[in-house]
Amino acid sequence: MSSRNLPPEDRPVAALLAPDIIALLEESPSTLAVETEEIHPADLADVAELLDRDQLKAFLDALGPSRAADVLEYLDEELRTEFLEAITPRQAAELVTEMTPDDRADILDEIDEEHAEEILSEIPSEARRVTEQLLAYDSDSAGGLMTTEFVSVSADMTVENALENVRAVARSGKKEAMHNIYTTDAQGRIAGVMSLRELLAAPSGAKISDIAWTEVVSVRPDADREEVARVIANYDMVAVPVVSESGHAMGVITVDDVIDAIQEEQTEDVQKFGGMEALDEPYMQIGLFAMIKKRAGWLSILLISETFTTTAMQHFTDELSKVALLGLFIPLVMSAGGNSGSQATSLITRAMALREVEVRDWWRVVARELPSGIILGSILGAIGMIRISAWQWMFQHNIALGYNYNSLGPDKLTPIPGTWKLMALTVGFALVGIVTFGSLAGSMLPFILKRLGFDPASASAPLVATLVDITGLTIYFVVALIILHGTLL
Amino acid sequence: MSSRNLPPEDRPVAALLAPDIIALLEESPSTLAVETEEIHPADLADVAELLDRDQLKAFLDALGPSRAADVLEYLDEELRTEFLEAITPRQAAELVTEMTPDDRADILDEIDEEHAEEILSEIPSEARRVTEQLLAYDSDSAGGLMTTEFVSVSADMTVENALENVRAVARSGKKEAMHNIYTTDAQGRIAGVMSLRELLAAPSGAKISDIAWTEVVSVRPDADREEVARVIANYDMVAVPVVSESGHAMGVITVDDVIDAIQEEQTEDVQKFGGMEALDEPYMQIGLFAMIKKRAGWLSILLISETFTTTAMQHFTDELSKVALLGLFIPLVMSAGGNSGSQATSLITRAMALREVEVRDWWRVVARELPSGIILGSILGAIGMIRISAWQWMFQHNIALGYNYNSLGPDKLTPIPGTWKLMALTVGFALVGIVTFGSLAGSMLPFILKRLGFDPASASAPLVATLVDITGLTIYFVVALIILHGTLL
Repeated sequence: MSSRNLPPEDRPVAALLAPDIIALLEESPSTLAVETEEIHPADLADVAELLDRDQLKAFLDALGPSRAADVLEYLDEELRTEFLEAITPRQAAELVTEMTPDDRADILDEIDEEHAEEILSEIPSEARRVTEQLLAYDSDSAGGLMTTEFVSVSADMTVENALENVRAVARSGKKEAMHNIYTTDAQGRIAGVMSLRELLAAPSGAKISDIAWTEVVSVRPDADREEVARVIANYDMVAVPVVSESGHAMGVITVDDVIDAIQEEQTEDVQKFGGMEALDEPYMQIGLFAMIKKRAGWLSILLISETFTTTAMQHFTDELSKVALLGLFIPLVMSAGGNSGSQATSLITRAMALREVEVRDWWRVVARELPSGIILGSILGAIGMIRISAWQWMFQHNIALGYNYNSLGPDKLTPIPGTWKLMALTVGFALVGIVTFGSLAGSMLPFILKRLGFDPASASAPLVATLVDITGLTIYFVVALIILHGTLL
Repeated sequence: MSSRNLPPEDRPVAALLAPDIIALLEESPSTLAVETEEIHPADLADVAELLDRDQLKAFLDALGPSRAADVLEYLDEELRTEFLEAITPRQAAELVTEMTPDDRADILDEIDEEHAEEILSEIPSEARRVTEQLLAYDSDSAGGLMTTEFVSVSADMTVENALENVRAVARSGKKEAMHNIYTTDAQGRIAGVMSLRELLAAPSGAKISDIAWTEVVSVRPDADREEVARVIANYDMVAVPVVSESGHAMGVITVDDVIDAIQEEQTEDVQKFGGMEALDEPYMQIGLFAMIKKRAGWLSILLISETFTTTAMQHFTDELSKVALLGLFIPLVMSAGGNSGSQATSLITRAMALREVEVRDWWRVVARELPSGIILGSILGAIGMIRISAWQWMFQHNIALGYNYNSLGPDKLTPIPGTWKLMALTVGFALVGIVTFGSLAGSMLPFILKRLGFDPASASAPLVATLVDITGLTIYFVVALIILHGTLL
């Protein structure tokens, strides 16, 4: 669970209950199951995380397999894996058999493969078959998210009969997804859907075929989790069926798993945008070297790319040595390009993730970013010019801006009147060009990555900044050559 | 709806149906409601977005108020606002009265205040009271997300009586939230909760008090939407009650609204991390000048902050004029600092949003980022040194790296043997220091912002890069002073 991380003030139950539960464990473990039956398994999992290893084993034993399975589903992943690997395969099999097939598959997927095989071999054969089938799907796909147990009824049943069927399933204690009830045709293909509420609202004499919706919104087993999330969000669903190409219902994805998937996807996107590989584990839990590995790759690539700024500057050593003042503004103009590029990239990657913008819309984005860049660049250019002028006015006697000091060495400055005006113009116009280029480059990068088959979310702020740096430098020096030609250069 | 943006291949229903619906509208509008009754309102909303203004009016009229209200809930916000402002207040009131109170309040909140008042005055008084109450809450709070209509039963009812009650409510056609059924005590305080499934599973003779859970997970009306999302995700809920301080149930938040809230929150966070204010509207829909306004503020602040790099460099003009080579590597070392800072910031802001890390954990983060920074910096430092050495080896006859060319002007280079080795050492050690500082600064910035009462999500990649730039420059020149002292400097 990605969200087992509420601070204590939000989970008072756990902190309050821990001492009582420890006392019960020591004094009368046989009453523990009854005493805790009103408590949400998520809260019991919080308590379990406060226990030591032996206490945890005793606690789950005392709860009994069904309830212990509920608690395990909410337990911290690392602790759960450790626990299931420490007990015997038979004990572990008894616990995971009580889980819904999707949770069972997810949990076995996390633990050591050899252990998982041993546990699987102890699971009843039908449950084993289903679990192995789910394990075969990519855990980020609809197939990996679905549970295979859901409720379907025959379309020609009466509402009352169907309701009796549903009540029988609910009473069986199995954990079928039951927000929606499905109907299937003679070939076993999914034919209709109704909510439990619609079933309850139906007049007593009605037939299921009268009330079921025949347009069933569904997803394919290979749909990725982002698509599942979009469908669920789009149609305000609490569960979506997974349907094979031949129309057979393979399982159901419930909204709680989709929320977890959305949160994980968002964490990945944020980390990628920060300029690294997604960690795939909580920050405080991942090993230091595993984390460094995820960060070092992009940092190295970006560093090597950035060495081209040095190459670019070598082409302008002549200008730099004549007008060293130019060097002083390099960080300023470069960062403005990176910042405007970062804005544009964050806007477009997010709009692409939400499908507000498709690859074919690239020219519409250009049509917005070009004027935006020019206007933003003009604003920044004006600020830059005002700042340089203000500087000159405030510090004209003790600062080098009024001088072209470089060619004679630092101790012998030659005042050239109006130098600061020329520098202000250079910085101002360079900012217009660089911010415009930054906005365009930052907005186009996600399109280019997607077109090339990469994840557009890899368009990170540091990547855009690096790409814009090299061009930004060139723009700056070209503007300087034009404006300073014949005076300082 | 944040997700009304599926590409056509995901919404074939809309594209396929539009011609049929237009034909029906022209030929026999009276059959339209029956012909489309199986179609999900989200799909009908997609069709509605393809119609012109007159067709849209005729389409919604033909559907009848209840169904038209469903379609309006899924319609593009801008189009819906325009439509509701174009029809008479009485017509609009008839439509919004059919909506759930939360959707009604959200939709009235979007439209022009004067129009909204006129529409409100035409709504039946009880519905008006509830709507006004919801409008008083911040739309990002639990109170702004909740619907006030939910189902509660008396704790001493039998299960069969309660089920009959629930069926009567379901049959009434009202839109109460019905995933969970609540019980209240004599003072009207919320006392228990059960899912519809648990009600169905209960043995016929049982009393409600036997099956209801007495530990009711709830949120306060002023809880922000992030907290609501955490509670819903944490307990795998489909609905969470909103409970006042005195224990009275005020409403229920359903998971579909929470998903929309999570998506919006995430969009805001991504945009803020990109270095701008959140747009609050889809990228392709917001006006150009509204967007520029959201972007210009931070860009200007960052530019002004970045002018301090110029100030910092002025302190080192002496060194720069002696060893112009130092200038060539400024973009390289600065960007490495910004990139490592961006990584650290993205990790920590996300971990804080998920509550994996709290403010009091800052020292644990330092204990991870300090070694990470040193190791990452050493890796980058090594790459930097190798790159400079490789350059020297490849281009030793035609590039300036082997020379301290500056003090004598570009045309008269004085070869100083070993210059490149000293530069490699300078860049290498500077990278270790800068990346370490970047990782620390980037990880601490969200904590500092939160501690000062700001949103930690305002810690953007460009902000971190700017903060690190100034210190990075200083680190670089100090390292240069130490390493080059007595030789080049």
